[in-house]
Amino acid sequence: MVERSISPSPAYGTHFRTAIERLHSERRYRVFADLERQNGRFPRAIWHHPEGPREVVVWCSNDYLGMGQHPDVVSAMAETALKTGAGAGGTRNISGNHHPIVVLEHELADLHGKDAALVFSSGFVANEAAISTLARVLPDCLLISDELNHASMIAGVRNSGVEKKIFRHNDLRHLEEILKAVPRERAKIILFESIYSMDGDVAPIGDICDLADRYGAMTYLDEVHAVGMYGDRGAGVAERDGVMHRVDVIEGTMAKGFGVVGGYIAASADIVDVVRSYASGFIFTSTMPPAVAAAATASVRHLKNSGVEREMQQRQAAATKRALAARGLPVMPGDTHIVPLLVGDPALAKAASDRLLERHGIYVQPINYPTVPRGTERLRFTPTPFHTDDLVLELADALDETWAALRLEKMAIAAE
Amino acid sequence: MVERSISPSPAYGTHFRTAIERLHSERRYRVFADLERQNGRFPRAIWHHPEGPREVVVWCSNDYLGMGQHPDVVSAMAETALKTGAGAGGTRNISGNHHPIVVLEHELADLHGKDAALVFSSGFVANEAAISTLARVLPDCLLISDELNHASMIAGVRNSGVEKKIFRHNDLRHLEEILKAVPRERAKIILFESIYSMDGDVAPIGDICDLADRYGAMTYLDEVHAVGMYGDRGAGVAERDGVMHRVDVIEGTMAKGFGVVGGYIAASADIVDVVRSYASGFIFTSTMPPAVAAAATASVRHLKNSGVEREMQQRQAAATKRALAARGLPVMPGDTHIVPLLVGDPALAKAASDRLLERHGIYVQPINYPTVPRGTERLRFTPTPFHTDDLVLELADALDETWAALRLEKMAIAAE
Repeated sequence: MVERSISPSPAYGTHFRTAIERLHSERRYRVFADLERQNGRFPRAIWHHPEGPREVVVWCSNDYLGMGQHPDVVSAMAETALKTGAGAGGTRNISGNHHPIVVLEHELADLHGKDAALVFSSGFVANEAAISTLARVLPDCLLISDELNHASMIAGVRNSGVEKKIFRHNDLRHLEEILKAVPRERAKIILFESIYSMDGDVAPIGDICDLADRYGAMTYLDEVHAVGMYGDRGAGVAERDGVMHRVDVIEGTMAKGFGVVGGYIAASADIVDVVRSYASGFIFTSTMPPAVAAAATASVRHLKNSGVEREMQQRQAAATKRALAARGLPVMPGDTHIVPLLVGDPALAKAASDRLLERHGIYVQPINYPTVPRGTERLRFTPTPFHTDDLVLELADALDETWAALRLEKMAIAAE
Repeated sequence: MVERSISPSPAYGTHFRTAIERLHSERRYRVFADLERQNGRFPRAIWHHPEGPREVVVWCSNDYLGMGQHPDVVSAMAETALKTGAGAGGTRNISGNHHPIVVLEHELADLHGKDAALVFSSGFVANEAAISTLARVLPDCLLISDELNHASMIAGVRNSGVEKKIFRHNDLRHLEEILKAVPRERAKIILFESIYSMDGDVAPIGDICDLADRYGAMTYLDEVHAVGMYGDRGAGVAERDGVMHRVDVIEGTMAKGFGVVGGYIAASADIVDVVRSYASGFIFTSTMPPAVAAAATASVRHLKNSGVEREMQQRQAAATKRALAARGLPVMPGDTHIVPLLVGDPALAKAASDRLLERHGIYVQPINYPTVPRGTERLRFTPTPFHTDDLVLELADALDETWAALRLEKMAIAAE
């Protein structure tokens, strides 16, 4: 062990401890569960509890289709590592542009029917880099953003430094009001998501494209919680709705439905070239390892040609909603694979999560502010094709017990 | 093939094409070479040329020690993928906190002799997230930043929104002037790098810590181009200089000396907890795959206990500098493993790079603005333990031929 670092001077320490104390007092200090994933056993995992390892069932994974353990995906990762070595060895421009990422970008461009795609280290970076870069390149650009857009889109808006307007969530009338008040020739980008992941509701993509056409706006759509899962080839809700060709920029991730990691945009050749050439967060970042890119490609290819994962996911999501609603549990309404259960208080959401884990071996994280607005704290379940009917039943029983023990409110909100 | 996207309205297209044209006219439009890395053959790689694949020697990799093909690293990646599956399945807080990343963070904290460490998707994100978060948490914080700091640190400064002062590169007198003008009780962080990667020069870390103590500042040190490569256990220049315990925050990467991918900070428990709890770019990003974390851990562990890679790298870097200087090639001075060769013009730097690749099978990327100031365009060589004496000789011959063919200037700048 080398010598320990000395603390910064006391004034700094006080500020840092105050910031941490604030989280404790608001009951939103986060403790990360130490989980050991096991290939082939998902959604089961080993929880490294201080008193020893325990098996749990993961109910809040964003590996929405369980593709993280698909044999094609896993073997692409392992075999590519053995073939190419571990890292990329550089940024895209300086020796890090390996062949598997070139192939992956072609695959993603084809998935979305666009000229080109560009891969980033994460979906957060994709949104931050693409939005801020496009907004800066367009003279006097106005960003028009849904009020519930993800933190990464907000980061892109803020870091662009350009003017923004916020429209009420999925409110076409309010969006049109804003568009109408801006000269047609002024550059403007409408920023929105297809599936809002904490509520599981869906944007009217076609209607928003209609407004964009009418008022001369570009459209930027985050499909992070939809790619792999909606549409005939898994390109997302825009594909399902037949409007993918009308969206200028589609942003997605390989970390959720595709079960690997990394974010991307797909768009026209010029748009991709601008982001590739000007986005600092892209230019100055090492490329993802070849093994990661190869795994992502295997997953995208598989889900282009296989619908069974999508069907099973929808089936088990519906089954979960039905089972929970039948117990009078307050399932928040929505038409997607996401099953949010309202608690409405951060301490109770945490207590419910703790009890489910400790007593029932069910792992679901409480979702608190700032991820969702205060007062709407919730548990958020993400049934996958691997959450069997038996697991759904066990979940419903465990929630029944937990709701009773903590005297949580049951409600008449039906799931569907 | 699905339907192609329609272009955005003509005004947008014009702006995007203008932005691209600007790069062409300034001779800094980047074309990424399509490379196929081959485990065990580094620094050789296959270049996917439009006319067919060719073997090249990579001379600009940031896999500085060739750890990307170390058997322990590669097998950790492949075996962990097979054991855990491909992706993490979530953010650190929501089901993505897998066991290998917990282990990696302990390893990194121990490496730097700090309480704790925190891993990010990239070094860029580590700097952006940590700097902007710490600056926002400290009331009325002033950021004091070296003028040559990396784009990612500049992004952190800008996105923090707090006041900044820039000091001349490695200029202690100018840094002290700035510190002296600020009240001692005001929070301030000095931001600097140990090795500035485009010039290969080194900061006086101990002297900067002296000034920080005298004027009550915190210190934030980017060791991205030093970790794995300097110090008895590979913790960086601060370890080598015996001052690691005096630096408050050390930022590093697993993508360069360690040969994998991802960034990190190591610091006191409170500092890490603040960044972990408040940094949007950390909170809302999926965890790196378990296989990537396991590979990084294997690399850090190996380099803690083995100095032979560091010795061989220094030996071959010195040999390269000697060989190039002996031909009168304008090696820029510096004491590190980085060998910059001045060209001074973007078109000529690109022409030299193209000729080396096409004619000699030597791959080295031109380094142009904005990575370096205009007029200092260069080729930047990074000899590794795997660049043998024969390869060094071949490089010197190829550069001789290229310098003559393009009538580039030879100079009397000695390497050492």
